[in-house]
Amino acid sequence: MTMRIYLAGPEVFLPDGGAAVGAAKRAICAAHGLVGVLPVEEGGAAVAAGGGDPGWFRIYRGNEDLIRGCDALIANLTPFRGPSADPGTVFELGFMRGLGRPVFGYSNTAARFGSRTLAALGPAARRRPSGGWEDAEGMAVEDFDLHDNLMLEGGIRASGGLFVAEAVPAGRRWSELGAFARCVAAAAAALLGSAGAGAGQPESESSA
Amino acid sequence: MTMRIYLAGPEVFLPDGGAAVGAAKRAICAAHGLVGVLPVEEGGAAVAAGGGDPGWFRIYRGNEDLIRGCDALIANLTPFRGPSADPGTVFELGFMRGLGRPVFGYSNTAARFGSRTLAALGPAARRRPSGGWEDAEGMAVEDFDLHDNLMLEGGIRASGGLFVAEAVPAGRRWSELGAFARCVAAAAAALLGSAGAGAGQPESESSA
Repeated sequence: MTMRIYLAGPEVFLPDGGAAVGAAKRAICAAHGLVGVLPVEEGGAAVAAGGGDPGWFRIYRGNEDLIRGCDALIANLTPFRGPSADPGTVFELGFMRGLGRPVFGYSNTAARFGSRTLAALGPAARRRPSGGWEDAEGMAVEDFDLHDNLMLEGGIRASGGLFVAEAVPAGRRWSELGAFARCVAAAAAALLGSAGAGAGQPESESSA
Repeated sequence: MTMRIYLAGPEVFLPDGGAAVGAAKRAICAAHGLVGVLPVEEGGAAVAAGGGDPGWFRIYRGNEDLIRGCDALIANLTPFRGPSADPGTVFELGFMRGLGRPVFGYSNTAARFGSRTLAALGPAARRRPSGGWEDAEGMAVEDFDLHDNLMLEGGIRASGGLFVAEAVPAGRRWSELGAFARCVAAAAAALLGSAGAGAGQPESESSA
């Protein structure tokens, strides 16, 4: 039986719609005996088939159908226009966890969520009397030594998946696939029982 | 049968952990015959019961358990530290949609996602030859006249829920509950069949 992996990430916003990096991701999946499934293209068949719905909702339905048809999901959680991951990717991560299937994630930035948030806030960040940091509205800066809001890594861990963070130069963060490849190996081990990265053992790795 | 609504949002980061606005939200739910369920508190019983897991993962498990025990979810999708909603909230929205239950959302900002993203990018935004905008890395600015990434409103619409955006002065955006109350009325109509906002009819409203 062929196992299918939904490849969530903001690469759909790249000038080529993520085609080049998507092809590279699919090749890595294939090398591990898995089929990588990319999000729908804006002009693609899944979208065109949506009938009277507005275009954006046809894209939504297309993606939801693709995720439902997959056995696992790997999310590119590299920060996107702020301290956190792309919200569309995060929605898909939560959705697949809701379906009860294994989810994996990676980030091509090794800096932790807390320090990235403080960097984004700049001089607006201030110390709380009780310790920790808050923003100008008095809202806390989450700091659990994780790579994003705890719900993201929590969902990955709860599903038995793997999260990998890797320091990558800024210019290569939408093309570098080392951390992604480690997620694929872990997914293959979990789904196909092949030797390799600790299947079924919730893990978090970091290399910098 | 008592219907329970999980109340997702970044108010947990407020200095009081969201207690005051949480109590106000629960009162609105109660007035509609619904039980509002708040995320776990960092030091709460659900977290303390997590055994040997790290604290952040006990919070995750506590929240996931609470969501599983609810019949619907209302997400505060007001932009949080960037053009998009709080990623923890977005994860929970996707998770509940994955469970197949109705999800609702609101934003206390009427500005659309596209214009907010352009404002955040500032002079780094540039026109694509093909039309539309991109950032300094060449990644597209999503612009479907929606209030965040299309997956968020898509999930709400697909579930039969309601999304409400309302212009609220910046100083009141974490306390104003008008848009929230409209979501509660819609959830009550959907879950209890009470008269009121269009149950079962996917809708999107905006008032400015």
